Amino acid sequence: MLSQKEIIQLFKDTREDSEKICSFLETEDYVVQPIENVSPPKWHLGHTTWFFEEFVLKKYAGSHELFDEHTAYVFNSYYESVGEKVIRTNRGNLSRPTVAWIYKFRKYVTEEMMKLLENNKLSKEALGVIEIGCHHEKQHQELLYTDIKYILGNNPLLPKYNDEFKENIIQDFEQEWIDISEGIYEIGHKSEDFCYDNEKGVHKKYLCDFSISNKLVTNAEFIEFIEAGGYKDVLLWHAEAWDWINEHKISSPSYWHKIDNDWHQYTLNGLIKLDLQAPVTHISYFEAFAFAQWKGMRLPNEEEWETAQEKFAWGSRWEWTESAYSPYPNYEKPEGALGEYNGKFMVNQKVLRGGSVATSKNHTRHTYRNFFHPQLRWQFTGFRLVK
Amino acid sequence: MLSQKEIIQLFKDTREDSEKICSFLETEDYVVQPIENVSPPKWHLGHTTWFFEEFVLKKYAGSHELFDEHTAYVFNSYYESVGEKVIRTNRGNLSRPTVAWIYKFRKYVTEEMMKLLENNKLSKEALGVIEIGCHHEKQHQELLYTDIKYILGNNPLLPKYNDEFKENIIQDFEQEWIDISEGIYEIGHKSEDFCYDNEKGVHKKYLCDFSISNKLVTNAEFIEFIEAGGYKDVLLWHAEAWDWINEHKISSPSYWHKIDNDWHQYTLNGLIKLDLQAPVTHISYFEAFAFAQWKGMRLPNEEEWETAQEKFAWGSRWEWTESAYSPYPNYEKPEGALGEYNGKFMVNQKVLRGGSVATSKNHTRHTYRNFFHPQLRWQFTGFRLVK
Amino acid sequence: MLSQKEIIQLFKDTREDSEKICSFLETEDYVVQPIENVSPPKWHLGHTTWFFEEFVLKKYAGSHELFDEHTAYVFNSYYESVGEKVIRTNRGNLSRPTVAWIYKFRKYVTEEMMKLLENNKLSKEALGVIEIGCHHEKQHQELLYTDIKYILGNNPLLPKYNDEFKENIIQDFEQEWIDISEGIYEIGHKSEDFCYDNEKGVHKKYLCDFSISNKLVTNAEFIEFIEAGGYKDVLLWHAEAWDWINEHKISSPSYWHKIDNDWHQYTLNGLIKLDLQAPVTHISYFEAFAFAQWKGMRLPNEEEWETAQEKFAWGSRWEWTESAYSPYPNYEKPEGALGEYNGKFMVNQKVLRGGSVATSKNHTRHTYRNFFHPQLRWQFTGFRLVK
Amino acid sequence: MLSQKEIIQLFKDTREDSEKICSFLETEDYVVQPIENVSPPKWHLGHTTWFFEEFVLKKYAGSHELFDEHTAYVFNSYYESVGEKVIRTNRGNLSRPTVAWIYKFRKYVTEEMMKLLENNKLSKEALGVIEIGCHHEKQHQELLYTDIKYILGNNPLLPKYNDEFKENIIQDFEQEWIDISEGIYEIGHKSEDFCYDNEKGVHKKYLCDFSISNKLVTNAEFIEFIEAGGYKDVLLWHAEAWDWINEHKISSPSYWHKIDNDWHQYTLNGLIKLDLQAPVTHISYFEAFAFAQWKGMRLPNEEEWETAQEKFAWGSRWEWTESAYSPYPNYEKPEGALGEYNGKFMVNQKVLRGGSVATSKNHTRHTYRNFFHPQLRWQFTGFRLVK
Repeated sequence: MLSQKEIIQLFKDTREDSEKICSFLETEDYVVQPIENVSPPKWHLGHTTWFFEEFVLKKYAGSHELFDEHTAYVFNSYYESVGEKVIRTNRGNLSRPTVAWIYKFRKYVTEEMMKLLENNKLSKEALGVIEIGCHHEKQHQELLYTDIKYILGNNPLLPKYNDEFKENIIQDFEQEWIDISEGIYEIGHKSEDFCYDNEKGVHKKYLCDFSISNKLVTNAEFIEFIEAGGYKDVLLWHAEAWDWINEHKISSPSYWHKIDNDWHQYTLNGLIKLDLQAPVTHISYFEAFAFAQWKGMRLPNEEEWETAQEKFAWGSRWEWTESAYSPYPNYEKPEGALGEYNGKFMVNQKVLRGGSVATSKNHTRHTYRNFFHPQLRWQFTGFRLVK
Repeated sequence: MLSQKEIIQLFKDTREDSEKICSFLETEDYVVQPIENVSPPKWHLGHTTWFFEEFVLKKYAGSHELFDEHTAYVFNSYYESVGEKVIRTNRGNLSRPTVAWIYKFRKYVTEEMMKLLENNKLSKEALGVIEIGCHHEKQHQELLYTDIKYILGNNPLLPKYNDEFKENIIQDFEQEWIDISEGIYEIGHKSEDFCYDNEKGVHKKYLCDFSISNKLVTNAEFIEFIEAGGYKDVLLWHAEAWDWINEHKISSPSYWHKIDNDWHQYTLNGLIKLDLQAPVTHISYFEAFAFAQWKGMRLPNEEEWETAQEKFAWGSRWEWTESAYSPYPNYEKPEGALGEYNGKFMVNQKVLRGGSVATSKNHTRHTYRNFFHPQLRWQFTGFRLVK
Repeated sequence: MLSQKEIIQLFKDTREDSEKICSFLETEDYVVQPIENVSPPKWHLGHTTWFFEEFVLKKYAGSHELFDEHTAYVFNSYYESVGEKVIRTNRGNLSRPTVAWIYKFRKYVTEEMMKLLENNKLSKEALGVIEIGCHHEKQHQELLYTDIKYILGNNPLLPKYNDEFKENIIQDFEQEWIDISEGIYEIGHKSEDFCYDNEKGVHKKYLCDFSISNKLVTNAEFIEFIEAGGYKDVLLWHAEAWDWINEHKISSPSYWHKIDNDWHQYTLNGLIKLDLQAPVTHISYFEAFAFAQWKGMRLPNEEEWETAQEKFAWGSRWEWTESAYSPYPNYEKPEGALGEYNGKFMVNQKVLRGGSVATSKNHTRHTYRNFFHPQLRWQFTGFRLVK
Repeated sequence: MLSQKEIIQLFKDTREDSEKICSFLETEDYVVQPIENVSPPKWHLGHTTWFFEEFVLKKYAGSHELFDEHTAYVFNSYYESVGEKVIRTNRGNLSRPTVAWIYKFRKYVTEEMMKLLENNKLSKEALGVIEIGCHHEKQHQELLYTDIKYILGNNPLLPKYNDEFKENIIQDFEQEWIDISEGIYEIGHKSEDFCYDNEKGVHKKYLCDFSISNKLVTNAEFIEFIEAGGYKDVLLWHAEAWDWINEHKISSPSYWHKIDNDWHQYTLNGLIKLDLQAPVTHISYFEAFAFAQWKGMRLPNEEEWETAQEKFAWGSRWEWTESAYSPYPNYEKPEGALGEYNGKFMVNQKVLRGGSVATSKNHTRHTYRNFFHPQLRWQFTGFRLVK
């Protein structure tokens, strides 16, 4: 449990980080939404701010004056409970409120939050909600990176974001197999530190013997799969996956471009030659599974990953697992609006473990359960094999 | 492992059963395909026959003469491997081959099979394929019932199928909770008897304490849920479920009709007043889950169901579980075309356990894993609660 | 105006013709609806019968007893006014009522109509409605041919309909240009004979000089267009047409198959080698227009066609014109349900003139205005050029 | 034919006008594309500029240096001929090039054009292309207004554009019927002044007697239609229209809002109470047609409108006609890329005549033929009746 002083630091850092991420953008980049999964950066900035005004200031800041009662509601993502204020147009169709308005909104809410935090001794409950708000904003920071990448990387001009962001981490060590023995293991979040509801409920899991790779699958290995005709061999794919790759004409990871017979990759630094030793990224679960089939291996399930993770490096790619996203035994859905958050997505999604180059610092942990539909590729996803 | 004599009996019974099921149909009923999941009865009859000609007679019957080499391929469901013979039109658009043709095809293949079985001592391998073929046809017998129900029950004239088929089994016993203690349990098919590949690989599973109902949820209970506004309370539903019920305007189980304020149900015997004590059926996983949420309980996972099943009656409804359909540890995909069968569906589906009034006799067993997408309702589905 | 005796003959012939057309079908062929525009043959047979019971017998036959008051409504195509009895499933999903039922329904209604016609002196109004009913059934006879062709010609087995029906009429005369001089011409139906509302309202039209071909464009000419890259030259196509041929991958007329480098054509007699001298058929307006552009010519408008038609042979292909389907000046929509018939389609459709090999005898005339959406191809369409 | 001096003035005014229209926008407003028909304002500004660089400077300005050879192509709307440079993402997904970049591009091209125009005696051909470029930009100015209205008027905040723009012109005169006598009339553009290819080819048209209203239908009259149940009476609508209003739940003109039982209208000045005497606007052809049916009248065809237009005031609403958009007799498609412009849209669209409050000054004329699909409503459309 963080102290109020620690929360203050966490809050300040988090708010600054979001703005730092966006400091490389043009105003226009904040506005567009090329696909449904990608939100406009201005929406992320507004929504994370709305969260603090709605769930903290309104409740704990006594006489808080709303920044703009007629506008902020457009940043409510909990549409279902909004009722009469349903927004029909998509987020990417909203030119107003403007980016300048949103920065004013952020400034106002950040200052009001700082006043609240610095001038009052807050209850454990209030601090808990603020901590959640910070973690919520950190999640959106990761989405800011991946959504910005989608926006720029699908623009025909392929503009770069900046020169600093490093996507490709080299794994300069030998591939080895880590053996884990059959037996009962404990799964789930144990400490007092922050975690999400879906990680809670420590429980026992019986695992069989397995061996897991210490390395993520690399671009070089994935090119072998492509060149061996992996995308054309129906026996490697789930039935839904086969329909998907054919309908969308998928034949390589996302952001790959073949130019004069050489594979290139759009990165946040612009278009570069594909780094063969870097872990493959922007692939779907479907592709990870097909690759594993081709190798005669499989993906780990999430409990295997959690059990073995101490013994390998992770954090540059969200790693697909074989596990469907389901409640842990004794899962308890939190009360109220915040409770809607995780449970309602527990169908038709796969769990990813680890974290990525886009994950905010101190945001992930070895029990963290990320989840996406099996065909999604806009995150910095990757995978490792089990045999 | 069945003897050749037992296989002969199984084969004869199975072939007869399919034709008995269809004996109540008009020729026109064999042809239509009102939704993608529902195949025309004539297709089921042809496809199960094609299976024996393709995988048994061609391989084990030496000089077998094909019934019609230019036509039978339309009953191949393994489209992916067919290549040049891809059928573009949907099954329900094919008026030819005719029903009469198909019955001739069935007669010819059944007779050729009987000659093979009665005049030769077949290898274990050959007998194994014939046994699979019989189980395959039994699966299609269940689909015949549910597809016929869909075809007739969605016809505005609501014609009956026959007067004999009993859909509604009464559970004339008290509701009780069966307690199972925490510990390690063995899961999977153990005996030498026939089972599918997806049931194999006996493995240990650690279960927490749980209590499971001895009774399926009834129509009366489900009406309570409806009347309490269950279909209108967003907090009870998965996000995808909420979109689904709204898009399709779902507000009751399938085949229910409210007439003059009374609930009626289309059954294979025609439209009747809803039997309140019968187990609810033709509901999706989404609806079962929402009901459980409303009750403050949950659905069992498949290992809980398998462990507890000895202590309750089952078999009238396929029972939705919370488990996503995934491979068991050490799952091994069979070689060749038959191997495609189960593994390629192991994503985005939920496991159902038990069996239903439409299941062929001796077809299901306590380790049987059925699976459907979470929104499907045309099967005789139901559910029981866990707390 | 036909006498009652003539009406009796017309009625008898018309009813018999429909059944003769269907006499070559298997029961299954009556049931399917592979695309929305194609109705199941049993629906045509039922609907044309329902028309006589609904609009004649109910109104003019005094004590007429309905054949089946609970069933016949499914043959009502005037869904909009039916209200509570809306049919949700598509026609091709309805296995009931059966074909046998429909033939009984036809027999009953035909006999009741004959009693009415033979035992009473009918009013001009009643005779008028019966005459419309006969023309209505003749229209459906043409659809029977084209829908049967679609059903059989899109079945992978390509079954033939019969050996007698002649699709391809040879134009064994030289191509010539017929010149028509600028001036005022009268357009529209003049005689007392039967015609539809949309042909009425004789009016003057000023035409410029034009020359129209005495011959329909042939398959040989259309192959030249294909081989010259006509389907790939964007400048020849309307914007909507270009999208359409690309989306549907259209590169030849419907029913053409290239086998071992030779063009073949599915006809009602089965698959045959393409008859090069026959008029091209099963093409859309879009394709006719693109061909004309390629030739540096154009299609006639409907008034040009009507004015020139005395000077050339026509009747084997419905001929696309450049004219959009609109009301003639002083068009008057008939009162009541029959009035809905033509006017409500007067947007987004093109007029076709002439008639085809599938048109019932005595059904078309030089003022007849047929109309279809510009992309439709399942009718026996064709075209001639103007310069 | 304009002199070079007149062209210079036209060019300067046109370029300034586009920027004046956009001077009321926020940067974000330039970017979004809420529906396919609405282009982002920045695209209009860029595209009209690209036109001058591509078709004038490249060809007539000798040593013209391109502003940016790698970027300008995104403003090419003649996608079909671009080939390899196809842009896959929609215009509204492109955050780059930025608005600032586009204004620099405009400035550069405008200056280069002015140098060309002021320092050279240009050929008739070159001046002709520049004149077309100006008219092309004026067309986009009208789209700027209607697209901006769509962008702001579909934003839940309903922001105003400015206070000056007047949408609602009052017709403060009595409704009267103007009679036109049967006879031959000349149709088409006659003078030497600029017009589009689709207006050319003066030709004779025979018109019957008709009477046309001197007034556009008003909001007050349209409310009567709504209150009489016009949107619910199937007999008033085309079959396609009926499907359209039901699918999209259309029950009033676009931009109408009923607040506390009073009709309001979003205008470029923000949300106001509906002006009952103003001409109805933002309605589809389908709605205009249904209204006319309800009145027992009809819409004029385009030749009637052109013949009668001298006798009534017009210019505040584009007026729907009954005429489908087709080539005039002897229509000649211009050569080359500019020739693609009009002809390829001559199917499935209706002609509108007149002009609107958003039409640039001197842009329309009595022979101008505008055209849209019959369901479109985002333009300032209206209609007058004929009997």
